[in-house]
Amino acid sequence: MAHCIAEEAEKILDKAYPVLDYGFIRLVDYCGSDDRIVQSARVSYGAGTKTYRQDQGLINYLMRNNHTSPFEQVSFTFHVKMPIFVARQWIRHRTARVNEISGRYSVMSDEYYTPDKDQLNFQSVSNRQGRGEVADNETQKKVLKIIEEDHKIISENYHKMLDMGLAREIARIDLPLSQYTEWYWQIDLHNLFHFLSLRLDNHAQLEIREYAKIMLEMVRKVCPMATKAYEDLRLGGKSFSASEVNALKKMLNGEECPLTGRSKEIFEEKLS
Amino acid sequence: MAHCIAEEAEKILDKAYPVLDYGFIRLVDYCGSDDRIVQSARVSYGAGTKTYRQDQGLINYLMRNNHTSPFEQVSFTFHVKMPIFVARQWIRHRTARVNEISGRYSVMSDEYYTPDKDQLNFQSVSNRQGRGEVADNETQKKVLKIIEEDHKIISENYHKMLDMGLAREIARIDLPLSQYTEWYWQIDLHNLFHFLSLRLDNHAQLEIREYAKIMLEMVRKVCPMATKAYEDLRLGGKSFSASEVNALKKMLNGEECPLTGRSKEIFEEKLS
Amino acid sequence: MAHCIAEEAEKILDKAYPVLDYGFIRLVDYCGSDDRIVQSARVSYGAGTKTYRQDQGLINYLMRNNHTSPFEQVSFTFHVKMPIFVARQWIRHRTARVNEISGRYSVMSDEYYTPDKDQLNFQSVSNRQGRGEVADNETQKKVLKIIEEDHKIISENYHKMLDMGLAREIARIDLPLSQYTEWYWQIDLHNLFHFLSLRLDNHAQLEIREYAKIMLEMVRKVCPMATKAYEDLRLGGKSFSASEVNALKKMLNGEECPLTGRSKEIFEEKLS
Amino acid sequence: MAHCIAEEAEKILDKAYPVLDYGFIRLVDYCGSDDRIVQSARVSYGAGTKTYRQDQGLINYLMRNNHTSPFEQVSFTFHVKMPIFVARQWIRHRTARVNEISGRYSVMSDEYYTPDKDQLNFQSVSNRQGRGEVADNETQKKVLKIIEEDHKIISENYHKMLDMGLAREIARIDLPLSQYTEWYWQIDLHNLFHFLSLRLDNHAQLEIREYAKIMLEMVRKVCPMATKAYEDLRLGGKSFSASEVNALKKMLNGEECPLTGRSKEIFEEKLS
Repeated sequence: MAHCIAEEAEKILDKAYPVLDYGFIRLVDYCGSDDRIVQSARVSYGAGTKTYRQDQGLINYLMRNNHTSPFEQVSFTFHVKMPIFVARQWIRHRTARVNEISGRYSVMSDEYYTPDKDQLNFQSVSNRQGRGEVADNETQKKVLKIIEEDHKIISENYHKMLDMGLAREIARIDLPLSQYTEWYWQIDLHNLFHFLSLRLDNHAQLEIREYAKIMLEMVRKVCPMATKAYEDLRLGGKSFSASEVNALKKMLNGEECPLTGRSKEIFEEKLS
Repeated sequence: MAHCIAEEAEKILDKAYPVLDYGFIRLVDYCGSDDRIVQSARVSYGAGTKTYRQDQGLINYLMRNNHTSPFEQVSFTFHVKMPIFVARQWIRHRTARVNEISGRYSVMSDEYYTPDKDQLNFQSVSNRQGRGEVADNETQKKVLKIIEEDHKIISENYHKMLDMGLAREIARIDLPLSQYTEWYWQIDLHNLFHFLSLRLDNHAQLEIREYAKIMLEMVRKVCPMATKAYEDLRLGGKSFSASEVNALKKMLNGEECPLTGRSKEIFEEKLS
Repeated sequence: MAHCIAEEAEKILDKAYPVLDYGFIRLVDYCGSDDRIVQSARVSYGAGTKTYRQDQGLINYLMRNNHTSPFEQVSFTFHVKMPIFVARQWIRHRTARVNEISGRYSVMSDEYYTPDKDQLNFQSVSNRQGRGEVADNETQKKVLKIIEEDHKIISENYHKMLDMGLAREIARIDLPLSQYTEWYWQIDLHNLFHFLSLRLDNHAQLEIREYAKIMLEMVRKVCPMATKAYEDLRLGGKSFSASEVNALKKMLNGEECPLTGRSKEIFEEKLS
Repeated sequence: MAHCIAEEAEKILDKAYPVLDYGFIRLVDYCGSDDRIVQSARVSYGAGTKTYRQDQGLINYLMRNNHTSPFEQVSFTFHVKMPIFVARQWIRHRTARVNEISGRYSVMSDEYYTPDKDQLNFQSVSNRQGRGEVADNETQKKVLKIIEEDHKIISENYHKMLDMGLAREIARIDLPLSQYTEWYWQIDLHNLFHFLSLRLDNHAQLEIREYAKIMLEMVRKVCPMATKAYEDLRLGGKSFSASEVNALKKMLNGEECPLTGRSKEIFEEKLS
């Protein structure tokens, strides 16, 4: 047995997929595939895996029973370019290995993220951390003008300071969170699935979701079976609390839902 | 045995120590002290620790021989307020637990870091990542004016967008890296010493060094013996490569230094 | 604000709770409590937490929405004595800090775990990793006699080799997995909850479950609110896959369960 | 750029190298090579790396200045078979991904480690954790006989219990620490170097050193340049404390060594 090769993944290796206005994501390398998951599970569970003659069945079994370690044997190396505010959300995932461009060593490029006009929404009232209704045309225009002004002045001032010979590590302190940065990011499949669950969720900020969507498709090319199991058992699944499970049982038994108020709302959302 | 109490630490608990223009650091809590290190080492090494009748001797032995796990039994909770560019360097240390204020949930304060005039140095020529000579008075004035302008415009524009009702998560994307943020940060002593070694080093950016200096003093109050061992054996110590050790031996034997060129320079720096 | 003190926890601090025949677990220290969770969440989410006037409500919200970082701000230090085969399962949880007694430094005690007679079950047929039916009286007696013989011979031989002056690190290599070991173990609440979910599960080996049960009660004394949220939302809850959620919707709508075969069995188990 | 291929590594991929009496280690896969280190460093330090025209120079610079993250971009997957007491030392390294055979699922093989006759040393007097003088022939013979007896009885009893139908998870609790186990182990190069530093050290137990030696050679085939830098700058190097550096300076200046007692002994050992 040599390196695991996933045919579909080979085709996209090293291709940059554009994200947002100046960003991209490319799969630099991967190590292992569905085969490696199966192979390492068979080391762990030995005879215990014999009943699963087929790999998809075994992978489903592992995912369903939280046998997460075989998924850690597959790893991915991505090269990503994204705004700093996205990078700051991203790096909260600590079980990854990162090499980011440094503004102390390098002059940063004049690339700042500007949201699409139709993503300039008003603050949500119900959701404290997110966007609500789309802004009216007037507001959109005003906001885009403000953002444009921000970027112009910040960029000019950054270069003025560099031109005066100021140390890069000082000149860059007023660069905006919309400034693009880039990094190499290596992570194993188990932790990547966890990342995707949080970053594909509709509570995640729209911008990072755009990256997560593409990564999910890249993962599918390396590990189609594991991705299938993940989508059915995790991503598309729901967790119900003890009281919700109790409510489900009653309701399936023809009784009324015993939950009330906010608890009932949360419960009903899961079933809608 | 109840909670470990370090008298000196009790006195500073919860006091905010100012750092930079708007920042601070306070020790929110600590768990364990020199006693805990000794106590857990005695569990690990049992009879092996008997020869060390005194705690300082045992702690030195542990540090000298890279028996790092007893140092992991002590932990610290800090509340820190610092510019985002400092936070970005800080969070590269992954073995810590963080709760940071979120610009999606909260309106960020109008606090941006402005370096002291006499820290506005030119780019270093020899050190690609750092500051070199102090800038002349003229340049300093110009830079401070530029920074002032940056902050004024960015702040005004941020509030304009919020006033228009724009979602906070969009309005904040042009806030600068000099914007102050804050977090709770919990870490164990072994990893904190590693953090301090990197962040007290003169290659670290001046601003994060200011925080590290205060943290070292806080750690000393919780674990005076471990801090003493750390300062002698790690922080103030030097690592020599195989060829440098060889050179040392020769030179102590009265021979010439066999190193040349850049290798010799690096070697001599360590001994200057 | 000084150290968080949980009154109920203070009462049990440092008390050894017996587990299995020679084991114990004691809470050596804790850092933080429900208050710390709330306090650090209010740093993170700022104004976002205002709608939660009460701590229990906020803690439930955090747990329900996978805002796990505030739970990482509370930590626990345990002193545990357990058989090595339990320790080997335990140490698979990597996000903890461990100091274990070393058989290279110390002579190991003559304490080996012998299961209770009524826990000497036959191999389960359906569950490849677990116990099935209770063994008959005859078998139980025979097994206990074998185990007794194992322990007697191993212990005698260990001491014979030590008496001959053999290095401890060699003499100990034939000690059995039932040999008791002990360690200091420090972990944060988020990761402890994860540990408990896996180790309270009825697929976990009975022996480690005995430790987990006591730890759950210790955690409850330090963080009653978080433990309540955990028990309702995680421990007592169930995860349903995408197809299972779909089935639930149909069935609540009066339709037949669309699942068949093994999938249906797994689904029905969750609702039984 | 596609997968990094290291020609020398390709030749040994998947070949089992024997270690001890029944153990082995094989390189299952690797991801990245010296090229990947250079490539990711150039992302991080951008223009900062231009002065290093040659890869070896850049890699040395990274290692010398503790720029460890590019080394984390290379990873290794090993399949290892080793005695449980070795596995227990090994797993203390938490930054790795493991799949170990489970004695709950599988019947364990009748393979137990027996040290070579000439490694049956007496307990060291000076070093509490290690072996001292080689035992006399008489003692060696007696010890080997004891070990043989241990293995025979334990194995017979294990199979007796399995034959009676006892659950595997109980039957295995008296298996000895010399029992062979096996696992898949994945780790990045930075953490692997740290593992090697600790496990190649002459304080590490002889048995785990045998594995570490082979791994070092495997790493060399994947990353010859990084391994060269590691051997000169870390493995073959020495750390000197602040007082030792001070002593060195004095001595190079023709003065007497200011250290005394145990401190002097430790210092002189480093220079011998």
